[in-house]
Amino acid sequence: MDNRTVVLTGDSLTVEKVAQVAIDGAKVEFAPAAQQELQKSREFVYKLVNDNVPVYGFNTGVGANKDRTVAAEYYNQFNVNMVRSHCVAVGPEAALPEVRAMMVVRLNTLLLGYTGMSPEIAYMYQNLLNKNITPVVPERGSIGEADIACLSHIALTMIGEGEAYYCGKKMPAKEALAKAGLQPLILGPKDGLALVSSNALAAGQGVLVMHELKKLINLADIIYSFSLEAFKGNVSPLDEEINRVRRFQGQNESAAQVRRLLTGSYLWLPNIANALQDPLCFRCACHIHGAVRDSLHYLEELMNIQMNSSDDNPCVLMSQNAIMSCGNFEVVNWAVAFEMLGIALSHLSRAACFRTIKLSTAHFTGLPRFLTPDPEHVIAFGTIQKPLTALDAEIRHLANPVSMDFYAVAGDIEDHASNTPYVVQKTRKIVDNLYYILGIEAIHAAQACDLRPEKEFQLGTAGHTVQQKIREIIPFLAQDRNLTTDIASAYKLLKSGGLLDVLHI
Amino acid sequence: MDNRTVVLTGDSLTVEKVAQVAIDGAKVEFAPAAQQELQKSREFVYKLVNDNVPVYGFNTGVGANKDRTVAAEYYNQFNVNMVRSHCVAVGPEAALPEVRAMMVVRLNTLLLGYTGMSPEIAYMYQNLLNKNITPVVPERGSIGEADIACLSHIALTMIGEGEAYYCGKKMPAKEALAKAGLQPLILGPKDGLALVSSNALAAGQGVLVMHELKKLINLADIIYSFSLEAFKGNVSPLDEEINRVRRFQGQNESAAQVRRLLTGSYLWLPNIANALQDPLCFRCACHIHGAVRDSLHYLEELMNIQMNSSDDNPCVLMSQNAIMSCGNFEVVNWAVAFEMLGIALSHLSRAACFRTIKLSTAHFTGLPRFLTPDPEHVIAFGTIQKPLTALDAEIRHLANPVSMDFYAVAGDIEDHASNTPYVVQKTRKIVDNLYYILGIEAIHAAQACDLRPEKEFQLGTAGHTVQQKIREIIPFLAQDRNLTTDIASAYKLLKSGGLLDVLHI
Amino acid sequence: MDNRTVVLTGDSLTVEKVAQVAIDGAKVEFAPAAQQELQKSREFVYKLVNDNVPVYGFNTGVGANKDRTVAAEYYNQFNVNMVRSHCVAVGPEAALPEVRAMMVVRLNTLLLGYTGMSPEIAYMYQNLLNKNITPVVPERGSIGEADIACLSHIALTMIGEGEAYYCGKKMPAKEALAKAGLQPLILGPKDGLALVSSNALAAGQGVLVMHELKKLINLADIIYSFSLEAFKGNVSPLDEEINRVRRFQGQNESAAQVRRLLTGSYLWLPNIANALQDPLCFRCACHIHGAVRDSLHYLEELMNIQMNSSDDNPCVLMSQNAIMSCGNFEVVNWAVAFEMLGIALSHLSRAACFRTIKLSTAHFTGLPRFLTPDPEHVIAFGTIQKPLTALDAEIRHLANPVSMDFYAVAGDIEDHASNTPYVVQKTRKIVDNLYYILGIEAIHAAQACDLRPEKEFQLGTAGHTVQQKIREIIPFLAQDRNLTTDIASAYKLLKSGGLLDVLHI
Amino acid sequence: MDNRTVVLTGDSLTVEKVAQVAIDGAKVEFAPAAQQELQKSREFVYKLVNDNVPVYGFNTGVGANKDRTVAAEYYNQFNVNMVRSHCVAVGPEAALPEVRAMMVVRLNTLLLGYTGMSPEIAYMYQNLLNKNITPVVPERGSIGEADIACLSHIALTMIGEGEAYYCGKKMPAKEALAKAGLQPLILGPKDGLALVSSNALAAGQGVLVMHELKKLINLADIIYSFSLEAFKGNVSPLDEEINRVRRFQGQNESAAQVRRLLTGSYLWLPNIANALQDPLCFRCACHIHGAVRDSLHYLEELMNIQMNSSDDNPCVLMSQNAIMSCGNFEVVNWAVAFEMLGIALSHLSRAACFRTIKLSTAHFTGLPRFLTPDPEHVIAFGTIQKPLTALDAEIRHLANPVSMDFYAVAGDIEDHASNTPYVVQKTRKIVDNLYYILGIEAIHAAQACDLRPEKEFQLGTAGHTVQQKIREIIPFLAQDRNLTTDIASAYKLLKSGGLLDVLHI
Repeated sequence: MDNRTVVLTGDSLTVEKVAQVAIDGAKVEFAPAAQQELQKSREFVYKLVNDNVPVYGFNTGVGANKDRTVAAEYYNQFNVNMVRSHCVAVGPEAALPEVRAMMVVRLNTLLLGYTGMSPEIAYMYQNLLNKNITPVVPERGSIGEADIACLSHIALTMIGEGEAYYCGKKMPAKEALAKAGLQPLILGPKDGLALVSSNALAAGQGVLVMHELKKLINLADIIYSFSLEAFKGNVSPLDEEINRVRRFQGQNESAAQVRRLLTGSYLWLPNIANALQDPLCFRCACHIHGAVRDSLHYLEELMNIQMNSSDDNPCVLMSQNAIMSCGNFEVVNWAVAFEMLGIALSHLSRAACFRTIKLSTAHFTGLPRFLTPDPEHVIAFGTIQKPLTALDAEIRHLANPVSMDFYAVAGDIEDHASNTPYVVQKTRKIVDNLYYILGIEAIHAAQACDLRPEKEFQLGTAGHTVQQKIREIIPFLAQDRNLTTDIASAYKLLKSGGLLDVLHI
Repeated sequence: MDNRTVVLTGDSLTVEKVAQVAIDGAKVEFAPAAQQELQKSREFVYKLVNDNVPVYGFNTGVGANKDRTVAAEYYNQFNVNMVRSHCVAVGPEAALPEVRAMMVVRLNTLLLGYTGMSPEIAYMYQNLLNKNITPVVPERGSIGEADIACLSHIALTMIGEGEAYYCGKKMPAKEALAKAGLQPLILGPKDGLALVSSNALAAGQGVLVMHELKKLINLADIIYSFSLEAFKGNVSPLDEEINRVRRFQGQNESAAQVRRLLTGSYLWLPNIANALQDPLCFRCACHIHGAVRDSLHYLEELMNIQMNSSDDNPCVLMSQNAIMSCGNFEVVNWAVAFEMLGIALSHLSRAACFRTIKLSTAHFTGLPRFLTPDPEHVIAFGTIQKPLTALDAEIRHLANPVSMDFYAVAGDIEDHASNTPYVVQKTRKIVDNLYYILGIEAIHAAQACDLRPEKEFQLGTAGHTVQQKIREIIPFLAQDRNLTTDIASAYKLLKSGGLLDVLHI
Repeated sequence: MDNRTVVLTGDSLTVEKVAQVAIDGAKVEFAPAAQQELQKSREFVYKLVNDNVPVYGFNTGVGANKDRTVAAEYYNQFNVNMVRSHCVAVGPEAALPEVRAMMVVRLNTLLLGYTGMSPEIAYMYQNLLNKNITPVVPERGSIGEADIACLSHIALTMIGEGEAYYCGKKMPAKEALAKAGLQPLILGPKDGLALVSSNALAAGQGVLVMHELKKLINLADIIYSFSLEAFKGNVSPLDEEINRVRRFQGQNESAAQVRRLLTGSYLWLPNIANALQDPLCFRCACHIHGAVRDSLHYLEELMNIQMNSSDDNPCVLMSQNAIMSCGNFEVVNWAVAFEMLGIALSHLSRAACFRTIKLSTAHFTGLPRFLTPDPEHVIAFGTIQKPLTALDAEIRHLANPVSMDFYAVAGDIEDHASNTPYVVQKTRKIVDNLYYILGIEAIHAAQACDLRPEKEFQLGTAGHTVQQKIREIIPFLAQDRNLTTDIASAYKLLKSGGLLDVLHI
Repeated sequence: MDNRTVVLTGDSLTVEKVAQVAIDGAKVEFAPAAQQELQKSREFVYKLVNDNVPVYGFNTGVGANKDRTVAAEYYNQFNVNMVRSHCVAVGPEAALPEVRAMMVVRLNTLLLGYTGMSPEIAYMYQNLLNKNITPVVPERGSIGEADIACLSHIALTMIGEGEAYYCGKKMPAKEALAKAGLQPLILGPKDGLALVSSNALAAGQGVLVMHELKKLINLADIIYSFSLEAFKGNVSPLDEEINRVRRFQGQNESAAQVRRLLTGSYLWLPNIANALQDPLCFRCACHIHGAVRDSLHYLEELMNIQMNSSDDNPCVLMSQNAIMSCGNFEVVNWAVAFEMLGIALSHLSRAACFRTIKLSTAHFTGLPRFLTPDPEHVIAFGTIQKPLTALDAEIRHLANPVSMDFYAVAGDIEDHASNTPYVVQKTRKIVDNLYYILGIEAIHAAQACDLRPEKEFQLGTAGHTVQQKIREIIPFLAQDRNLTTDIASAYKLLKSGGLLDVLHI
């Protein structure tokens, strides 16, 4: 647990802050203005209750039941029923940091005053986060038009039903609340809907995937840079001016980073490169990483809005003295941005695979076939190209779009969807596979470096550090051995972020 | 564990027998002729060794190393190296029954005499199966041109390396062998290649998916039949003659089974149906299930060949006094049959979803919207359509083909692939999702039956039994409650096969 | 126009007979028994009319209008309205042979006596076919649950509306009928529905695609065999016994054909091959072609039923004295078989591409890079790999499934679909691309053969013929030239079937 | 032909300017500074020639031939050979405006001084554009890593080979040049490569697709707005503040436009709407259109860089006194942006389809089923939902990604690709289908408006104009008629841009 505290204002949440709360365990506080907004919007809702204005999901049913009136005496039961009846999710469970991310994202948007829920609920979110109670949330079941099927499980914990983790241990939610000294919530009008109706599942998981990707794209630069040294590649495509000619942001970011990573490398010596022009997997790596970066920048712009604006329906508009029905839970713009990102990542993956294969190809490297240290007796890296390909094919498959595969549900009213949770979850899976793929590339590059006979051979500072970190866990392949364990070690090294830490990236 | 014994002959293995060994724990024996074939082909191999004929993977390297000679004194080390260097797999672990299925499939094909491996290895397979030792096999890493990256892990256990399960407990393979009173193998010439070079991973997992599907397609008929009763549907499309007019095998099998399942149902009463023509999800259900059955029949024809023929390369041909290089590990014909099956299943899934939605739609059923028992106070089955849709979208996504996504590896020699293991694994995932989808349909049908006001309403014998089994675990929905647990219960009921048992199907 | 006549019996139509009528212009006659069946079922329908039994699409509306009654005095107008209102198609126009195929397929199924339409309509189909009138049929608009949106345009011609081709010239249908001495039809009860409600568009186009594929798979064997000679490949994977070991039908058919095609080739000389084991694109070609053949055999079994059985709804069942509602227009089983075929073809395509690339790769062939006749001055076949890849990527894209992408239409009644017409049309496009891809392979193989320096080099009889046919239209590449025209020539040669004719295949 | 002239500066080309030249026939001029840049970079190249510095594609071969030296005496022949040998394209021909777009895009980037080609070539581009000569360019064959396979055909025209259109008439290029008073070019060093090595095919076609889409997204707003009036939908989701809450740019642009379009409509009357909450296809239309707009904005940022920066390889860097090898032809970032756009468009399509279906559904609209004017005798819009679905399924299929489907070509050097031309071309096809889909929606909305019985019913000014324009070509459906022609009329109206013109959008 982290000692830091993230102050929520409703409009200043970032990927990094979410990660701090979700992963590092930072606590959350509310900015004073936000607290007032919360209070004001709730008072406004009560005013409407007394005026008998019909408001969706408040004194009416929801979905196709929206034309049914809810009599005042049933408010409490109605809201509990809504929570329970919306518990229609399917496992597996979302990871604990993911559930925390959902809670902080949803909590932040409550502070903007467009929801009108009981302030007690906001404090409950805060308490769950700060006292380390994490509801069990099965991650499947939502089609992305508000993640009601799943977020209901967070609400369930709040009313003392279902299960939750307390300090990492699973138990009945009631017991978890008790251990933390909390009382289950009594739900007031609109609370049920406000609890379930949000895209916080997809947004929370999505933000964590982005957090992961921001590291991964740097890792990809690092491994590429290391491979280029192992390959004795040509640095001309990295030239600052030649990249500036193109002006694409992502390409320039990666090229600049790779130039920095190659500081001190022998690759800058004149005429050292194998060839005037390397294979595209090397030559265009920064362009390909740049495509991922560009996609990620675009997505982040959208997600910064998502995390800091209300996706409530209906939306409380105090300025107009109204609670208004809307479609602000529709997030197809960032769902398709995630799909683009997946496609961009499939390119990054393919390029890493081809670099790895090239590193094993004698007529490109001048090194022994399959990087064997002993062509007579050691088979080395022949078969390892198959898991590479298999994992890459899986990424190709995952990159197929799915956001548009839906049909009308809920009495024909919900006739659009984005499948955003699944879109995010398949991107998460792509990222996981990429740790393996980049790990296998790193294994090859390290072996190639160790085999380089040239006396000019000299890794840059970064490359040297990378080589060391790899060799700490994966020795030089002098004899054939079980490589399944080497692959697993490389995966762990990359996923841990250790390489980034040691390079201060 | 099952007391039965499956006698392996090399040419009579079936989906059912594999399941008996893999799941039920039946023991295996060799037919006497098979034992002789094993011996003969091994003697033949030794004859060639002495004649110095160059044989791929035997006294040459493998893959792109095939042009390297292996000197006789290195046979042992070469084969151990081959096993180790081919261990390049990625988790998760295959399930224990799946690994057993791989072993029995591979063992069976050894008995045909085209492999020429040490008979000791065949006995080792038998011992592992019969003494309940199951190697740890990470299931990813193969691209389907022989599953060498993964099957190597079975070989690893045999030589006392890596890990294995003994009676369900994971431990070092060496220890597992010791506990069972077995010695690690000493590998002779060609043994390494013979151990790893086979499609037994995909075939083993594939056969178990087919075993599962043969049950699932019956479950789909059962749930459809039950839904039709709940829906008060029209039975005219089930008419024997009208189906015979079409002659499609699968359609007729499902129609015949559904007619049987509806024995005694009120649906056969004259003029009972809601409508002259039901929605297609009801009217064409047998046609859609039939498409799955037809696909499955086609696949089974191919798999019966796969399980009972040699996929070895090189292939020992005693009649020609040769060991001949070939491409018999190429299984793209059944890989694409699995892809077709996945697509057919996506149709079955969609139809089940639409039936479920129709069961909730008042103007089709004449029952209350969302099958609520109390329109004023109980929300009932409104939101549950979302997980249905979400799971169906996932199936749509999984049904995308992937067999053709590959590129040249292994020194440009392995430039075709089928990704068969992943193709099978995604089909397995489709099946798993279908248990949920059919489970949710069953929940709806059961509720609709309980709400049917008609006095003629009378479930057939089968429908009655299904209703009872469901109600044992999922009570009538009288009040809103957490449906996540109901969905999980329905899933378990269907997956367990309990409904099939009680209906003797 | 062909002088032959195809006699239609209702149960003996084949792919070849359809092609004879559709492409070669053979005339059609009815078997006497079929004529009687036609008459009997019509009389039966009139009997029901007089009994006032409600029959779907007859004295009721169709689709969601099925609950509306059609009064007897409106029969005529109702049927004309039905034809007109079902004209909702979108271009481009189906090719003329395709429309002829639709007509012969539909006509054949009428003869089984399950339709009950006016015999005059059957004679009209016959007249249109035999007198060379071909309705304009826009090919898009159907979702495959009977191709009503498009087949209505054939009906339109029959009632003298819309446009048609007479002897290849487009004109108003009325005029075309007049020129051929025909009167527009007067529609009786059930005729409108009978005219539009059939899968004859998808079936007709599908059968012609299959006809094309039966040629293409032989062409693929021929080009592969020729490439193998150009490559100096290893024939061991073609061995009869080694293929028989596997027993897969398609693989054995291709292997047998390739062995025949290689009769007399130098490849059978001892130790002539480049390598013990060729790249898989060569080694496994018969397995891959076999996967296409197996898929095609499976599909043909289903299509033989489709062409020779009634897909009418409702279905006239004289034995039961009933016209019964059904779902026999549901063809998802063969829709998914076409999808499988597309995937299998994407494998065939990829293998052809990789063989072509290998033919251009010096270290595999021992020939100059990019098959240049003059490395100093002629660039030759470097860039041509790009259109190969581009066309192959397009095939990969087309092979994505689409049959399951639909939603409920027609008042929520038509909630299943198969998109069969589009599935067939994308397969047709795949086939077209394959002519280019195999053509480019042939260009390479011919060049490689001309460059082979070995004195043992000797094409077999078939290879020799192929080389000659290619050289008639595409000269040896001695200087760089515009290859776009060579590619177009190779495409035409393959598509024309000329290679098959000259080889008597 | 347009009288305007577009002045090219190298850095100020826009989608609109390209359209002006490509479609409207505007002439092009060079800014004076650009002309100087052209001259300077050419002189620089000649300086290097004299210094014998090895430069890729200049005095070396290209692709895998890059390690071959080209002797000075062969410069001319080498460059002509390069043009010819790169002609490896496959039809169909790109449309004439598309070829013009390619030329203006390529010409503009030449002016930046990074290419170093003969200034004569730039003037030749200008002449072809201004004198209305358009080379025949087969549009398939490029994999997007520079469109060399196709752009070579523009070069072919310049050297007087191949075919071209002169004032719309196809003829030998030599003849076209002669008619326009032009001489074929004599190629100098680097000219061949400079002519073929650019992404101008994909960029040119892509920019025109974007131009089309910028109109289409406005059309989608217009038709949606019209449908909302026909549907009697709820305007609350259009509220300015409620959209501002979300801050997504595209959503706000569409919402603002739809509010404007609804000026004067009866929908703003209090309590007029059918329902508190409309189906999502209506409620979230601006969010869905917004996703398309957001994607398009993102893409345009990238394309503005693409059109105004050099994609040459090698790149002439005068500041560094070098010609440097690079990967600046790698455009995967905007290839994947096009893929995202396709996915976003599939959402727009689906929503339009669902709105259309809803307009036909009595219990949503209060109008007769299938918008029939006479339920007894007119079938009206039942079957038309099928082409809608069929076209939408095709869009779903086209939206599958394809950019990552490639493998290593050109001697294993070109091992990355983006398939950008095909990505663009499939997007073009999606747009074409959307004209049909929106056209069918418009047909429905117009009929519904005519059937609206409410006395308050009053179209806004825009809606009124739309209704009029539709009724000019498609009369009210009073009797069943052939709707295929109505669909074609609606398609033409939308594609022509006539609706936009009349509404001044």
